[in-house]
Amino acid sequence: MSDEAIRKRTKETANKLFGKGIRLNPPYLMWREFDKDLANDFSKFITGNLYSRTVLTLPERQMAACAMLAAIRAGDELKLHVNAALNVGCDPKKLTEIFFQVATYAGMPAVNEALEVYREVLKERDEWPIK
Amino acid sequence: MSDEAIRKRTKETANKLFGKGIRLNPPYLMWREFDKDLANDFSKFITGNLYSRTVLTLPERQMAACAMLAAIRAGDELKLHVNAALNVGCDPKKLTEIFFQVATYAGMPAVNEALEVYREVLKERDEWPIK
Amino acid sequence: MSDEAIRKRTKETANKLFGKGIRLNPPYLMWREFDKDLANDFSKFITGNLYSRTVLTLPERQMAACAMLAAIRAGDELKLHVNAALNVGCDPKKLTEIFFQVATYAGMPAVNEALEVYREVLKERDEWPIK
Amino acid sequence: MSDEAIRKRTKETANKLFGKGIRLNPPYLMWREFDKDLANDFSKFITGNLYSRTVLTLPERQMAACAMLAAIRAGDELKLHVNAALNVGCDPKKLTEIFFQVATYAGMPAVNEALEVYREVLKERDEWPIK
Amino acid sequence: MSDEAIRKRTKETANKLFGKGIRLNPPYLMWREFDKDLANDFSKFITGNLYSRTVLTLPERQMAACAMLAAIRAGDELKLHVNAALNVGCDPKKLTEIFFQVATYAGMPAVNEALEVYREVLKERDEWPIK
Amino acid sequence: MSDEAIRKRTKETANKLFGKGIRLNPPYLMWREFDKDLANDFSKFITGNLYSRTVLTLPERQMAACAMLAAIRAGDELKLHVNAALNVGCDPKKLTEIFFQVATYAGMPAVNEALEVYREVLKERDEWPIK
Repeated sequence: MSDEAIRKRTKETANKLFGKGIRLNPPYLMWREFDKDLANDFSKFITGNLYSRTVLTLPERQMAACAMLAAIRAGDELKLHVNAALNVGCDPKKLTEIFFQVATYAGMPAVNEALEVYREVLKERDEWPIK
Repeated sequence: MSDEAIRKRTKETANKLFGKGIRLNPPYLMWREFDKDLANDFSKFITGNLYSRTVLTLPERQMAACAMLAAIRAGDELKLHVNAALNVGCDPKKLTEIFFQVATYAGMPAVNEALEVYREVLKERDEWPIK
Repeated sequence: MSDEAIRKRTKETANKLFGKGIRLNPPYLMWREFDKDLANDFSKFITGNLYSRTVLTLPERQMAACAMLAAIRAGDELKLHVNAALNVGCDPKKLTEIFFQVATYAGMPAVNEALEVYREVLKERDEWPIK
Repeated sequence: MSDEAIRKRTKETANKLFGKGIRLNPPYLMWREFDKDLANDFSKFITGNLYSRTVLTLPERQMAACAMLAAIRAGDELKLHVNAALNVGCDPKKLTEIFFQVATYAGMPAVNEALEVYREVLKERDEWPIK
Repeated sequence: MSDEAIRKRTKETANKLFGKGIRLNPPYLMWREFDKDLANDFSKFITGNLYSRTVLTLPERQMAACAMLAAIRAGDELKLHVNAALNVGCDPKKLTEIFFQVATYAGMPAVNEALEVYREVLKERDEWPIK
Repeated sequence: MSDEAIRKRTKETANKLFGKGIRLNPPYLMWREFDKDLANDFSKFITGNLYSRTVLTLPERQMAACAMLAAIRAGDELKLHVNAALNVGCDPKKLTEIFFQVATYAGMPAVNEALEVYREVLKERDEWPIK
């Protein structure tokens, strides 16, 4: 795939995932402040390649990403990806359910931290309470 | 819900998830050797309640469980749940994809440990290589 | 055990652990905002069953819970449980000691985060410095 | 405290904790193969100082150590410390209970890995099943 | 080594690492509020012994410490050690590079949290942007 | 950079890091069995891009990688990278030192698991004991 094509795909996928909803400082902007070229490489590999794959649909991918981020208790990153999950049409009730299901595998601190982040994002999006 | 109903649901869900595929020593049997009553309580709460909920379909729940277990690098538990995922009809290609997607959030050691477990389960189930 | 009996035990144990000391938003209230029935199920299983068991005394259980939460660096949850530990009569000097003993197993970041939370709780309870 | 006194205390505490029960290769021997002086420094600081303190009784300290090691899923180290816990007189039923209580904070993979190690140690000590 | 010599070495190494740059509350001061003697023991063992060793140069040791703290996502401790790394002459560009290299092993949440802390320290030191 | 140039750089860097020492199944071969194209993408991004950068020298990069992998207790991956560290000329005494320095940040289970892996690699390379 040409570099031009990858750039285009990176932009399109980034837009679907992060182009709406709450305002956040995407990590990409921070990477750029440290190293512009490497920031582009990360962006093209992560967003343009991994996130743009089609084996999973985008909502399926975001459900899995939210499950992982909740389990490893990465709240800031979860905020980005729960917003992205809602942007690509994940069912908000299914996201809630995933966070409760974390209990068995990673324990209640992980559940509680994820629900806290999730509720905050829903409020900022004016989509709380879930209907 | 009556205790009888919960027992029935526990058994049915356990059967769907763990009743086929590779032979494993389910944690439930170990719990029983330590404390029979508590083993039943855990089983009814986890399998009879959490795993039996219907907000997510069973395949969706298993996809999320596999994503979490890969991310926290819990190989033994992943073995159980990847087998269960295949038992309830998860697409093996989508499971592969989830394990590769772990890279961004939890790094390559998590990816590699998950793929290792997954390949082992597929071989024991005689479903390797994935078609 | 009847559902009524479990509710009663849940309430009694919750009261012993969380009914005094600092004001915190218990996770139970957040769970309820997402799913009222599941919130009750978690509460009955965790507080009414696990926390109400008598193999360990409540102070012994809280010492172990604080040890675990310090080791996995779950500060918000630790705040709840260190307050509960003090409510059920754990010796404040023994809690300090547990947090220092974390050093060998989980390293100094875990020690420091736990002591920080602990000192904050003691101050809010007006029990600082420890006598 | 004189260096001689610390050496004596290190030896006494090491003997109480690790002088009986199952045969294990203590990490100290491995440290020595890499750096003899540093091995002694670690041993004197950890065993002669931290483990020899008296704010917690030795059984209380071991209960907390087992809780932490189970929560962070450090199976090899847990093997050493569960054996030491039994050596200093911890109630085997209370140790079981601690491992089940891990569920709420660190999830079932941590519970299962701890019980697995614990059962193995009890068998090697010929103390299984717990009476 | 005499206790006097260890105290001297502790002080010298603490001064090289933490005597300049941003103002932080060193954990040592918090330890002291809980237990003065134990605080001194930790300080002498960690700073006077481990940090004062000469197998690695101080900048090499700080590079490794920053790599570890980024990988385990211990932001508060990283703040201390990134400041110390700059105090002992680590190349700021190499520190950036280490944080990007975390991606492969511990994933992007670890990278992002580390860069965030690092940028904050650089700004407080008035050394941002890196030249 | 042209795709041809990246392939070449991937191969060269892989050869420097993994072309000597102990025989291991590189994760790349496993990735290929699951998805040939994605395996190449990962390899080019990780080895051809990240590992081939020159801000850190290869030995500096490997020291940092070993520090991270020890801290997150990723033994299999550490085995690969400690072997690679020795292949690119890291001082074996400095690697030992890094693993001991893990104690402060991630605790003794991480130290012990890392030294265990390291000794095993040194023995397989016939470089044990370290001179």
